[in-house]
Amino acid sequence: MTRFTAPPITNIANDVLRQQLQQILDLKTKPLGALGRLEALALQLGMIQGTTTPHIEQPQIRVFAADHGLTKHGTSAYPSAVTAQMVYNFLQGGAAINVLARQHNIALKVVDAGVDADFAPHPQLLNCKIRRGSRDALTESAMTESECLAALKNGMEVVKDLPGNLLIVGEMGIGNTSAASLLLARLGDIPIADCIGRGTGLDDVGLQHKTHILKQVLARHSEEKAPLAALAALGGLEIAMMAGALIGAASERRILLMDGFIASIALLVAERLAPGVAQYAVFAHHSVEPGHAHLLELLSAKPLLDMGMRLGEGSGAALAYPLLQSACAIMKEMASFSDAGISEQNH
Amino acid sequence: MTRFTAPPITNIANDVLRQQLQQILDLKTKPLGALGRLEALALQLGMIQGTTTPHIEQPQIRVFAADHGLTKHGTSAYPSAVTAQMVYNFLQGGAAINVLARQHNIALKVVDAGVDADFAPHPQLLNCKIRRGSRDALTESAMTESECLAALKNGMEVVKDLPGNLLIVGEMGIGNTSAASLLLARLGDIPIADCIGRGTGLDDVGLQHKTHILKQVLARHSEEKAPLAALAALGGLEIAMMAGALIGAASERRILLMDGFIASIALLVAERLAPGVAQYAVFAHHSVEPGHAHLLELLSAKPLLDMGMRLGEGSGAALAYPLLQSACAIMKEMASFSDAGISEQNH
Repeated sequence: MTRFTAPPITNIANDVLRQQLQQILDLKTKPLGALGRLEALALQLGMIQGTTTPHIEQPQIRVFAADHGLTKHGTSAYPSAVTAQMVYNFLQGGAAINVLARQHNIALKVVDAGVDADFAPHPQLLNCKIRRGSRDALTESAMTESECLAALKNGMEVVKDLPGNLLIVGEMGIGNTSAASLLLARLGDIPIADCIGRGTGLDDVGLQHKTHILKQVLARHSEEKAPLAALAALGGLEIAMMAGALIGAASERRILLMDGFIASIALLVAERLAPGVAQYAVFAHHSVEPGHAHLLELLSAKPLLDMGMRLGEGSGAALAYPLLQSACAIMKEMASFSDAGISEQNH
Repeated sequence: MTRFTAPPITNIANDVLRQQLQQILDLKTKPLGALGRLEALALQLGMIQGTTTPHIEQPQIRVFAADHGLTKHGTSAYPSAVTAQMVYNFLQGGAAINVLARQHNIALKVVDAGVDADFAPHPQLLNCKIRRGSRDALTESAMTESECLAALKNGMEVVKDLPGNLLIVGEMGIGNTSAASLLLARLGDIPIADCIGRGTGLDDVGLQHKTHILKQVLARHSEEKAPLAALAALGGLEIAMMAGALIGAASERRILLMDGFIASIALLVAERLAPGVAQYAVFAHHSVEPGHAHLLELLSAKPLLDMGMRLGEGSGAALAYPLLQSACAIMKEMASFSDAGISEQNH
């Protein structure tokens, strides 16, 4: 397969800056380390931005939508038609991610990465459609090589010259937990049964059936082990496009505020294609979709929230967003012991 | 001891309303239960307010400050003088809680419940001082009966006719983890060693010494087992005043957004004095102060955040505040399946 040429990713490691950030935190008017993970978050944001005064401006959500050829085998609790219906719901402002984006003043656009429907032009909709749904991975590659590369490229273009410095990638695609489970099993070398969950709400019979189908898909594509080959064979159009978006955003040193299972599998793909991308990731929440725990372990990630959510759309990321604002505000506004004339510790 | 007369607390249990709230949540455009604990939170807020459209307006933080007679025995890593110094820091807007309150537009006032210093009048400072620090619990009751009742009463008055419908009680008091540990050991019937932590940052020797002192205090007051008697013997002025504030606020059906160990011990006291108060509590975060885990178990509580924090001031509660706003916004703004014309589940 053609090589994918990733843009350069700056390594954020910088011992001098890390020490400066830690010292600023240690001199704030609080016991050492008393703000816990909020301090670690402030430190990471400072490292990402290369500054002791991290800040967030004009945060952006892009919700990538696509359909999945594999759903014809009954791998999801909902019909494929729901993907397009939910796109309309996003455009009308009625979905969970719309509510949370409004609450936090996060700009939201929907990216048609490959929905099996045609949409009229809409100011909130970006048409990046590769095709109407991915191919049936049980019988062929989910994407051809050129479709997969086009999806990655479109993803990079979606974020290029985006306003602001923080990106949330959300997704909507009936059947996309299957694609994510397949990619996790292949790229993480994890038994497929450990990677599969109920998605939008399969019952026990549905879950068994999904497992049966996904095992066949993996066997069908047993040779596709390299990241790009695995992505094309097993992935979804929205997952490939999100991976491209994450690579592009990291190359511009944006904060990547990561949602749950599907978004994070795109990050795993992105990290394999462009090592260093994951340094820019802040993990927002722990999804209850079972594969997510394995994925977080692979990425050495500990999310901020654990709210028992499994919606996607970027909803977990949007929910955690104010914690990042808090971390920045603490760095910028909180007084030091000397500012406030406060006594030092006894012991 | 004189009985404390608590105001009536409305029982929020209401099966009809619970079913209505659950149905509204189930019809939103998302798989059943996919918003996880955010849905449970929306439901609780609806139950507290007795409505299917919970909302939050004019949220209030009151930070209760006091000193502790027991600190003369070296139970804290910081000198008592820091309590007053931190009050000035609050009034100057430089503490963590000021930063977070500004971020979320939460009104903040400081309540002098018994700081060992005299303050000039200040618009953000409420003078409710009972005395300059609690008494030395190693040799006498931390509060006399009348001091304890006055602290409870002042707490109820602080919240009476407060604007808005949500209260965060925060605290600052060098030595107050000791008082909280003592109350937890006594009211929860838990070995004191399991209730003690490093507070603002004791080392191992300091921790051993704190344990040694607190065991003696408990032995000195072995007869004081009833909630009010235990509060007077072992508690702090700020803890008693917070308990009064929580009782008063619950009697007015306000949402009580609970911070960490110290605030939650005040809630345990409040619940024992006025059963039903804890129904109004939303637990914001899990403190790393070891006693908090036991306390949460006693209160059957599972906090929203687990950020490794141990600062107090109401900081964990303020950090979690936007999650409550999200829960209300989801109830109010998110479309239902029929609003959005979306297909139902297959399986």
